Amino acid sequence: MKTRFVLINTSHAGNVGGTARAMKVMGFSDLVLVAPRWANVLRREETIQRASGALDVLNNARVVETVEEALDGVTHLCATAMTPRDFGPPTVAPRAHFAALTSPANQTAGQRPESVAFLFGSERFGMQNEDVYRCHACLSIPTDPKFGSLNLAAAVQLIAYDWREALGGFTVQAATQTARHAGADEVAGMLRHWEQSLADIGFLDPQAPKKLMPRLNQLFNRAQLSSEEIHILRGVAKAMSQAAAQTRPPAPAAQAPASPASGASLTLPPAS
Amino acid sequence: MKTRFVLINTSHAGNVGGTARAMKVMGFSDLVLVAPRWANVLRREETIQRASGALDVLNNARVVETVEEALDGVTHLCATAMTPRDFGPPTVAPRAHFAALTSPANQTAGQRPESVAFLFGSERFGMQNEDVYRCHACLSIPTDPKFGSLNLAAAVQLIAYDWREALGGFTVQAATQTARHAGADEVAGMLRHWEQSLADIGFLDPQAPKKLMPRLNQLFNRAQLSSEEIHILRGVAKAMSQAAAQTRPPAPAAQAPASPASGASLTLPPAS
Repeated sequence: MKTRFVLINTSHAGNVGGTARAMKVMGFSDLVLVAPRWANVLRREETIQRASGALDVLNNARVVETVEEALDGVTHLCATAMTPRDFGPPTVAPRAHFAALTSPANQTAGQRPESVAFLFGSERFGMQNEDVYRCHACLSIPTDPKFGSLNLAAAVQLIAYDWREALGGFTVQAATQTARHAGADEVAGMLRHWEQSLADIGFLDPQAPKKLMPRLNQLFNRAQLSSEEIHILRGVAKAMSQAAAQTRPPAPAAQAPASPASGASLTLPPAS
Repeated sequence: MKTRFVLINTSHAGNVGGTARAMKVMGFSDLVLVAPRWANVLRREETIQRASGALDVLNNARVVETVEEALDGVTHLCATAMTPRDFGPPTVAPRAHFAALTSPANQTAGQRPESVAFLFGSERFGMQNEDVYRCHACLSIPTDPKFGSLNLAAAVQLIAYDWREALGGFTVQAATQTARHAGADEVAGMLRHWEQSLADIGFLDPQAPKKLMPRLNQLFNRAQLSSEEIHILRGVAKAMSQAAAQTRPPAPAAQAPASPASGASLTLPPAS
């Protein structure tokens, strides 16, 4: 959906640069500045520094004199305001409003807008009433009532994020391969191996096992072991038993260096 | 839930101030800096300027030397990373992860953490692998794959927002009173009034009404009129009829100044 960000009477060049960057990371590029404090704000050093690579957004941005010029062709206007007004469009939380705007039900009813503009007032005074009155909705970011003062570029970032998510969102690249969970039979086999090895090293007394093995079973269940981790834990068990059977072997076991803490100093809590 | 924000090796004082402000607007206050570039960063001018009133967060912030010192007592650690890694905790979108963490099902299962820390790496290099490996999850903010470079304080703002929303969120103060929707009978009565007045001013031809009144009915249905607006529209109708009946009255009608456009120049699209 065509999406435009409109900054009205912006004072700080850094916020214009921060806005360009905030838009670009969320895949938006249409920026219009209405009567900014600095006529050359798109080329100021602070702007470019804070834009941090979003120079295309700055290069394509328009500077206009009036709010009306900034809104050509946009069908749905969202004001942003911190302070409630006693008249004007309904005040709504962005996430809820965006969900409604993009809902399949709205789509079916032909109510989904063709294009949207988000309007942001000046850092100091916010939006003027007459500009809010043009709008279909007034977005209020839910902030701590004791300190609601969002930075302008931060507000743009939140709106751009929520709007992008409502439009379907970008995907998160899964970094790690999803590990295959070990089957309960693999966990049980590993635990039998550990039970033997813990007895070998003198930590588990087979005559008075208390609840040690069920405790370890629960711990490993919560951890949702992978097959690879079963393999590691079996290696540890093997090395424990080897360490107990011999004087310490000349080289550590191949699977995993075995340095189990001495069981003597560990005490189990009473079984519950 | 106890929530901590940890900035590791932060270079830019402005980002520390921006982080303090981003946290405070979402109701968080526990900030720890690990080995920042500037030892006096909490008192630098740029920090204080960008914090813009969140000075209590700066005043209560701790500066420590190691990541471990920053994490005392925290039970669930979330790394943040832009670039996927081939090993480490699962990479997850913050909103989905927070929903899972705070879900009633997790609560019932005793899996809801007691406290959470969010870790942010340096502006230039992000988090080091060994710090990511400590964590339970690696948050990846879903950004445009072609330009994923979020500003540090902007990333803090998004995470703080999503986390606050997951915890229940702040409420949006409804600015305007919710208007009572007019009943269908009120709309029908107003439309009868308009039908008469539109005939009076010569815009509606009762012999060839086309679909004018159903069209207006649909328009007003979409607008979801309030009772107050019914009142305004009846005032307009009354003034239209008065204007047609007399030469223009000496003073405009009380309800609303009647200046209807001449019907002569308006043409209806063909009824469909």
